[in-house]
Amino acid sequence: MRMVDLIAKKRDGKELTKEEISFIVEGYTSGDIPDYQMSAFTMAVFFQGMTANEQAELTMSMVQSGDTIDLSAIEGVKVDKHSTGGVGDTTTLILAPLVAAVGVPVAKMSGRGLGHTGGTIDKLEAVKGFHVEIDKKEFIELVNKNKVAVVGQSGNLTPADKKIYALRDVTATVNSLPLIAASIMSKKIAAGADAIVLDVKTGAGAFMKNLEDAKALAQSMVNIGNNVDRQTMAVISDMSQPLGFAIGNALEVEEAIDTLKGKGPKDLEELCLVLGSYMVYLANKASSLEEARRMLQEVIENGKALESFKTFLAAQGGDPSVVDDVAKLPQAAHKSEVKAEKDGYVSEIVADEMGTAAMWLGAGRATKDSEIDLAVGLMLRKKVGDEVKKGESLVTIYSNKEDVQEVKEHILKNISISSEKVDAPSLIYDTVQKSN
Amino acid sequence: MRMVDLIAKKRDGKELTKEEISFIVEGYTSGDIPDYQMSAFTMAVFFQGMTANEQAELTMSMVQSGDTIDLSAIEGVKVDKHSTGGVGDTTTLILAPLVAAVGVPVAKMSGRGLGHTGGTIDKLEAVKGFHVEIDKKEFIELVNKNKVAVVGQSGNLTPADKKIYALRDVTATVNSLPLIAASIMSKKIAAGADAIVLDVKTGAGAFMKNLEDAKALAQSMVNIGNNVDRQTMAVISDMSQPLGFAIGNALEVEEAIDTLKGKGPKDLEELCLVLGSYMVYLANKASSLEEARRMLQEVIENGKALESFKTFLAAQGGDPSVVDDVAKLPQAAHKSEVKAEKDGYVSEIVADEMGTAAMWLGAGRATKDSEIDLAVGLMLRKKVGDEVKKGESLVTIYSNKEDVQEVKEHILKNISISSEKVDAPSLIYDTVQKSN
Repeated sequence: MRMVDLIAKKRDGKELTKEEISFIVEGYTSGDIPDYQMSAFTMAVFFQGMTANEQAELTMSMVQSGDTIDLSAIEGVKVDKHSTGGVGDTTTLILAPLVAAVGVPVAKMSGRGLGHTGGTIDKLEAVKGFHVEIDKKEFIELVNKNKVAVVGQSGNLTPADKKIYALRDVTATVNSLPLIAASIMSKKIAAGADAIVLDVKTGAGAFMKNLEDAKALAQSMVNIGNNVDRQTMAVISDMSQPLGFAIGNALEVEEAIDTLKGKGPKDLEELCLVLGSYMVYLANKASSLEEARRMLQEVIENGKALESFKTFLAAQGGDPSVVDDVAKLPQAAHKSEVKAEKDGYVSEIVADEMGTAAMWLGAGRATKDSEIDLAVGLMLRKKVGDEVKKGESLVTIYSNKEDVQEVKEHILKNISISSEKVDAPSLIYDTVQKSN
Repeated sequence: MRMVDLIAKKRDGKELTKEEISFIVEGYTSGDIPDYQMSAFTMAVFFQGMTANEQAELTMSMVQSGDTIDLSAIEGVKVDKHSTGGVGDTTTLILAPLVAAVGVPVAKMSGRGLGHTGGTIDKLEAVKGFHVEIDKKEFIELVNKNKVAVVGQSGNLTPADKKIYALRDVTATVNSLPLIAASIMSKKIAAGADAIVLDVKTGAGAFMKNLEDAKALAQSMVNIGNNVDRQTMAVISDMSQPLGFAIGNALEVEEAIDTLKGKGPKDLEELCLVLGSYMVYLANKASSLEEARRMLQEVIENGKALESFKTFLAAQGGDPSVVDDVAKLPQAAHKSEVKAEKDGYVSEIVADEMGTAAMWLGAGRATKDSEIDLAVGLMLRKKVGDEVKKGESLVTIYSNKEDVQEVKEHILKNISISSEKVDAPSLIYDTVQKSN
């Protein structure tokens, strides 16, 4: 087999076999296939796409390129949730203890990462004492005991994906749906997921700017999952404005606690109930989505969800009393309000620009070596559709520097107020299941 | 400017500017742009094509990447001819002295190259004493004096093209019309051509297997030439069967001599008159193609074309008496006939398979270091459309080894005989001039 022939085959729109895809992924990972052939191949994929079979083979070849996490010692169906990423997305912090409270095992491997705010681990570290330095044995014991634990990424997972992604990044082939789908799915499968719930975001703050692309990506990933015997479902959710109110690490932990108490922002709570229902259903803990939702609502109402969060924090060294006294979370030195300049209705809150404002305050990492300030961030006081009076607060800025004029101006520029009444956007646009 | 953005721009079908194309070609030639970005770019070009302006800019950027040959000391318009390559294509050997005989300066830079037979220089070296080791000054003096001289390729011409071609070869992007067009035109322009006549072959023995692709390539090259102020015309000619009768180095020299005497194969003579007329016309030596053709026929009839060939050979050390006694050319030790196995009409002679047979005999180089046997090759005794009787010779094999059974079988397998009458294929399918 010669790589140049396989590039030509893809270039001409023909379907590659399992053996051919393995040859490419193994060869590229080992260095036998050079970058310049792989980049020509990924560009050919950009134009010609990949069939469902090819995507499944690519995913599994990338899984097999490195270590895989064996979660078989954990009882039950291990369901993982993945979000394609957005601004103010606190769902993981809520869903982990929430579904654990109804008996779904959550063995979460999480990261820090770059972005507007920190990753799940950064956010959890806003709780004093919390740490993820537990070994594999302890991790599995904790999940079996408490149904939930979080560890940092370890091992050499999907090295093929890492190498291919780095190449795509500098050759203008990031934006290829089959490659995105295989990349995401390979990481989830290598991390040991038996079943996967996907939250594909769409809108200005999301990677997929329009609904059509978001649906296509969701369908690709759902097909891959089901083709490789991981039950997979996807939700297409709105990211035209930030989710919930909080953007920032400690602020999002506080918001998660509120939501687990049933007092969180309505959109965030609803999305958690929808995603959580899928997780419970795929874990075979409920016989319908309706039943699953009722179970989740019940553990919120009876306090078991909050209790699960406390147990989880304490098991990994965290101070569970923050749940009852959020003032124990890191606090910013300064608060200031971004006030509406006229009466009207909020018609737009540009999600990624709110994220940028939070990053300017220090809530996220611009580069791998940046330090995160866990205390800072934004709290939205209004969402799209809300009425607002001139002088009312739109956003509260939490900062550790006094001068936030630039951040204020940036926020004001990216919130539109209309004189006419505006409808709130839909939260869930669609759900995607296995195609027949 | 960042290469990744330019790849994305081309990927999205947008037109690159002159500055952007220069940035790519200069950056790749210098090594600042890595192979893996260039190969993603060429694959994007494969799918999105290039506008006429982009092709002209790419061509000139490749010309400027290295040395260029200055032929300004030669009087008159320097017209170069280029063929996209075929089997038994002896036109250069004939055209050089032919158009020189009517006063068109032919300052030919030629090569050896790989293929079924040798390049123009290999063929000319079948004439005892002929050599191309002349310096630039002598070359120019010879062209001014005799109107024709041939030198080997020298200098660092179009290094960008060489580097890009080598990359395309291993990344399945050879077959991109704009890249082929720019590659060919850059080499002609760097070699000093003021005007260019292109012979684009189509059919089984050609790079362009179908007429549509051949026309598109011809139109691209004609547009490039005229966009960069080199008058350019193209002829689309048949390469479904070999051109003329001879395939082999000395055999083709003999056929060229016959043709210069007016006794060559009709198809070869006709193609030379058509291409030659364009050359004479573009060199401003005739005011119409008809006048140009009459001038060429006249120098064949009155012996001046043959005289021009003798003068040219002698000026570069060759023995001009071969023209009157072709037995002085290298002679093969063995001759054997490939005989028809039934009565009928020749319906197909697969051009490239005849070329392969000649290469097996030693007429061409399989690798850069192969030795060429100048004496060996094939003479077709029949062409498509000819009637043939069982036992009549289809092809004469000239060889220096006794056992040519395998070659014979290969030839027989690739010549079809039909019981029904067959028309000879057209020789010239189309001519392409500047589009408006």
